[in-house]
Amino acid sequence: MKINAGLLLADINSPDDLKKLGKEQLHQVCNELRQYIIDVVSVHGGHFGASLGVVELSVALHYVFNTPYDQLVWDVGHQAYGHKILTGRRDEFPSNRKYNGLSGFPKRSESEYDTFGVGHSSTSISAALGMAMASHYKGEKDKQHIAVIGDGALTAGLAFEAMNHAGIEKSNIIIILNDNCMSIDPNVGALKEYLTDITTSHTYNDLRDGVWKVLGKLPIGKNFSREMASKLEASLKGMVSKSSNLFEALKLRYFGPIDGHNITKLVDTLKDLKDIAGPKILHIRTVKGKGYELAEKDQTKWHAPGLFDKVTGEIFKKTFEIVQPPKYQDVFGHSLIELAEQNDKIFGITPAMPSGCSLKYMMDKMPDRAFDVGICEQHAVTLSAGMATQGMKVFCNIYSSFMQRAYDMVIHDVAIQNLPVVFCLDRAGLVGEDGPTHHGCYDIAFMRCIPNMIVSAPMNEKELRNLMYTAQLETTKSPFVIRYPRGEGVMPDWKTPFEEIQIGKGRKIKDGKEIAILSFGHPGNFAAAAIRDVKAEGINPAHYDMRFVKPIDEALLHEVFAKFNKVITIEDGTVVGGFGSAVLEFMNAHGYKADVKILGIPDRLVEHGSPRQLYEEIGIDANSITEILRTMAGVKIKNELYSI
Amino acid sequence: MKINAGLLLADINSPDDLKKLGKEQLHQVCNELRQYIIDVVSVHGGHFGASLGVVELSVALHYVFNTPYDQLVWDVGHQAYGHKILTGRRDEFPSNRKYNGLSGFPKRSESEYDTFGVGHSSTSISAALGMAMASHYKGEKDKQHIAVIGDGALTAGLAFEAMNHAGIEKSNIIIILNDNCMSIDPNVGALKEYLTDITTSHTYNDLRDGVWKVLGKLPIGKNFSREMASKLEASLKGMVSKSSNLFEALKLRYFGPIDGHNITKLVDTLKDLKDIAGPKILHIRTVKGKGYELAEKDQTKWHAPGLFDKVTGEIFKKTFEIVQPPKYQDVFGHSLIELAEQNDKIFGITPAMPSGCSLKYMMDKMPDRAFDVGICEQHAVTLSAGMATQGMKVFCNIYSSFMQRAYDMVIHDVAIQNLPVVFCLDRAGLVGEDGPTHHGCYDIAFMRCIPNMIVSAPMNEKELRNLMYTAQLETTKSPFVIRYPRGEGVMPDWKTPFEEIQIGKGRKIKDGKEIAILSFGHPGNFAAAAIRDVKAEGINPAHYDMRFVKPIDEALLHEVFAKFNKVITIEDGTVVGGFGSAVLEFMNAHGYKADVKILGIPDRLVEHGSPRQLYEEIGIDANSITEILRTMAGVKIKNELYSI
Repeated sequence: MKINAGLLLADINSPDDLKKLGKEQLHQVCNELRQYIIDVVSVHGGHFGASLGVVELSVALHYVFNTPYDQLVWDVGHQAYGHKILTGRRDEFPSNRKYNGLSGFPKRSESEYDTFGVGHSSTSISAALGMAMASHYKGEKDKQHIAVIGDGALTAGLAFEAMNHAGIEKSNIIIILNDNCMSIDPNVGALKEYLTDITTSHTYNDLRDGVWKVLGKLPIGKNFSREMASKLEASLKGMVSKSSNLFEALKLRYFGPIDGHNITKLVDTLKDLKDIAGPKILHIRTVKGKGYELAEKDQTKWHAPGLFDKVTGEIFKKTFEIVQPPKYQDVFGHSLIELAEQNDKIFGITPAMPSGCSLKYMMDKMPDRAFDVGICEQHAVTLSAGMATQGMKVFCNIYSSFMQRAYDMVIHDVAIQNLPVVFCLDRAGLVGEDGPTHHGCYDIAFMRCIPNMIVSAPMNEKELRNLMYTAQLETTKSPFVIRYPRGEGVMPDWKTPFEEIQIGKGRKIKDGKEIAILSFGHPGNFAAAAIRDVKAEGINPAHYDMRFVKPIDEALLHEVFAKFNKVITIEDGTVVGGFGSAVLEFMNAHGYKADVKILGIPDRLVEHGSPRQLYEEIGIDANSITEILRTMAGVKIKNELYSI
Repeated sequence: MKINAGLLLADINSPDDLKKLGKEQLHQVCNELRQYIIDVVSVHGGHFGASLGVVELSVALHYVFNTPYDQLVWDVGHQAYGHKILTGRRDEFPSNRKYNGLSGFPKRSESEYDTFGVGHSSTSISAALGMAMASHYKGEKDKQHIAVIGDGALTAGLAFEAMNHAGIEKSNIIIILNDNCMSIDPNVGALKEYLTDITTSHTYNDLRDGVWKVLGKLPIGKNFSREMASKLEASLKGMVSKSSNLFEALKLRYFGPIDGHNITKLVDTLKDLKDIAGPKILHIRTVKGKGYELAEKDQTKWHAPGLFDKVTGEIFKKTFEIVQPPKYQDVFGHSLIELAEQNDKIFGITPAMPSGCSLKYMMDKMPDRAFDVGICEQHAVTLSAGMATQGMKVFCNIYSSFMQRAYDMVIHDVAIQNLPVVFCLDRAGLVGEDGPTHHGCYDIAFMRCIPNMIVSAPMNEKELRNLMYTAQLETTKSPFVIRYPRGEGVMPDWKTPFEEIQIGKGRKIKDGKEIAILSFGHPGNFAAAAIRDVKAEGINPAHYDMRFVKPIDEALLHEVFAKFNKVITIEDGTVVGGFGSAVLEFMNAHGYKADVKILGIPDRLVEHGSPRQLYEEIGIDANSITEILRTMAGVKIKNELYSI
């Protein structure tokens, strides 16, 4: 079903077309753009609230600035749907986030209007400043560089580092602070309160009240009239609002706050800013989900709602006749509460992903023990380390690809001190539609090279629960990584009793002959399915779920390599330096010479698509393993669907 | 030669002893402590200026607070010598930074007074907040948590993330901002200017001037007296300094600035702060190198001057009769200028290490093309990425262990977009006296697992120059890592003509028989020395300098494994997932079954000492390799010194 854009939008194939319109027509363009986003996302899925909130801003920016010559950088980028639609990708937009379709984020290879690839937050100011400094050096004095960043993303240290630098550079950079009080979940922290404060003018009001109090002590009516006091107040207001501003303290000229849904005001303000040289910040207030009432009311739910009926607002959920396995996220969230009820030393920490990782359950139930610290992975880890020095058992839940942000803190603050912090790495492996910026490909490699670390991955819900249980025991004295994928596990009946797992101990799932499969984490299920598939053909590989890549179960590996000289390793991480390499290192150290087939994420970027499509593409899904088993076993069966 | 402490200091074996003294005696304690640091560091080496700058603060903190119950966290930690001397380590202090001696940084395993291990900057607020939140939860309401952080360290994003969180927590945390306008080099950025501003009260003065101007318009003399205006001004001062303060904007109660060398004032202020609950910040002004005139005057030179004559101030330099090889750092610094003179697209970026990495030469010569961006590795990398999008060739120089801070930016902003940023990883390998927080152990493993990366290491000065030359060519389209160690190379005559190196191409240094050594980077020289040593014994290994771990030279490896089945790999990085593992991965992929001895940094923390001692300890120095070659060659020679 083709989704039609509105009358004006249908003719906008580039910002040049937009610029041909009169300012009075922009309101209609905004309405049509908003409607088109609702029409497409309700049917094809994707992020929702963020793009609705910046419809007016997207139109205003492309109307006022000379894109793509002027460089426009969207922070995070899931709010850039309007930008994509206005820059020649309207008709392709229904392919958004689909396999071989448009990326859900700005992407340099997709369009010259996408000046900087994003996905993770808070990079935009640094990137735009780098562009601006290069332009300054090249003498391109008319060129503008615009970073659009949310108040949530502003809490990350990277954004602060960039502002601290931008303030002393002479380059043309405009930071647009899109203040909607939200990350995916409501924004937290002192800065958020400050932004509310300057918006509602408390700071100025407090000062004014103080001034009036002083003036009250003066003999008003006699020597000093109310009128004179009012004059004084008006002058003070200008001076104080400037001198009391946090951004001005960082040498950024501050403008705003203005209503980010007033297209005329936005256009006029941006035109003014264009003519002011040097670093500056424009503070706009927007509403996430603007124009779709339900989304305005429950912004977290409507951040990325899945498919829905745009008229009734009903979000479609798959229904099943039999009980389905739970999400690993929910197993984490509920199991942590169970553990915390037994162990009063347990804390939970998440950097801005309470809904995504399900720490929210514990935050609701035990608000003094579970904390969302905002978009600041670095702080989350070092904070956890500080808590651990006081004997607390902290479960610090960070998505695998976001953990890249806190790598030094894991090494320097946790591992070197051998503090028993538990890192739950959610979204490990290929995450699907979010694509290469969000795939959790590298954590096995970058974690296992750190001394003192314990690095584990559960194959199912029971294993996750038992690893969590083991990690919080007093006898566990080292940092403990538990990595698991986004989405459903395999055990509908998941609430198994907690059992301690010996650290560094794998398990034999089944005996076999000729071939052994060593799996790490959830892909063990792909292997198990393949083993079932080939059973009838007389292929009978052994299967070991290694559970730990560090320390690796050497006794089990001795058993394997004493018996098998054809071995397959499988993991949902990069094959460079990952679990397979750990097995090779063991073999080399002990003189084993088996043939090993290493399955995992190849050493190239894997794009977006459903996890199923992607695992098939990289050849580690059950069907691919089936074929590999046949080849290894010397069985030649023609299989047109899954030939490798 | 025993160095004696002064009369009072000689009797201070713990903070309890310090607390027995009268407040009027603290001035003498400070003098003695300062003198003892000068006496010891001049003879035994170490960091110098930073500890002299916080002598009074160190005394005041231990005098006022109930350490170690109260938790004192020193940021970075090279200023903590006074703290160490006051907390029972006075007599051990001459062993500071020596093999098996005291650590140059606070270290939990060394003393209960060292509450949090440090080395890298900007962790203290997060750590102290974590401790404070744990104490709050446990109901330890009287417990204090103090983070001492410099103005340089405050520019890192982590510190901002922590302040943003601290402001909304009710926990007892005191941040002491030790403002001396310095990192190792002079501090940079808008925040630095702001701190100067509030210290010299420009903000307030500007406002006052404005108020006077307004008042001037009022009919003074008639209805409004100068006296009334003064009254008004005094009241305004209090309100404005509070409302205009950046830290107050982050909900931290701000106190100061006060003179950090006035021991009486410090003690009184800290006593007052102790009784104020909640998060607060005390701004103190200090002088790095205080009390040693030369160090006050040239603070960068005296940050860690080496040994010196404390009377004359002469810094001792080793003298040599023949020309010595240059430091890799200087080869980098000078070669970059040569390249930049030929290629106007070259930029240089360093996060706060211009002297350490020698970018300073280019900053002095080409100030519009080389930048110190402050302690912010994350921003340095994303800024470089932004510059690269505009066609610039950025050499971003970051110490290997500090690069851990920008890991996500390397992946997300550079590698995923395949931008040709050049990362020069200085201080790769074991750095020596700074110890485990600073050793560059992990970069081979954490860089080579990223798609699109080129990862190289030069064996000598010529190779470094040629890798730098190759990295900046227009034909080089991918991110390019060049890692090299701290200190001297091997070529006194280092200024060789630039030559392009084919990316991914190693070189055969010598043919040989039976055994092949594959080296990566500078340790190739250890191997070369060992090969020379065993020549007379008839052991004749081949030697290949691989240059690149990614892409690895497959043609060369095919040559090696076709000919040799005894292979040694050597690198100055972790053996987990490093260069040796890359060789194993190649072998496995191509079915080679040689015996490989992997030499590198073992999977444990390596403590501090001289690089020579440490490489001997981990068994990859020339003598160790000699022994390994003998064993592999089947030659049994008793060598008592270097038996393995």
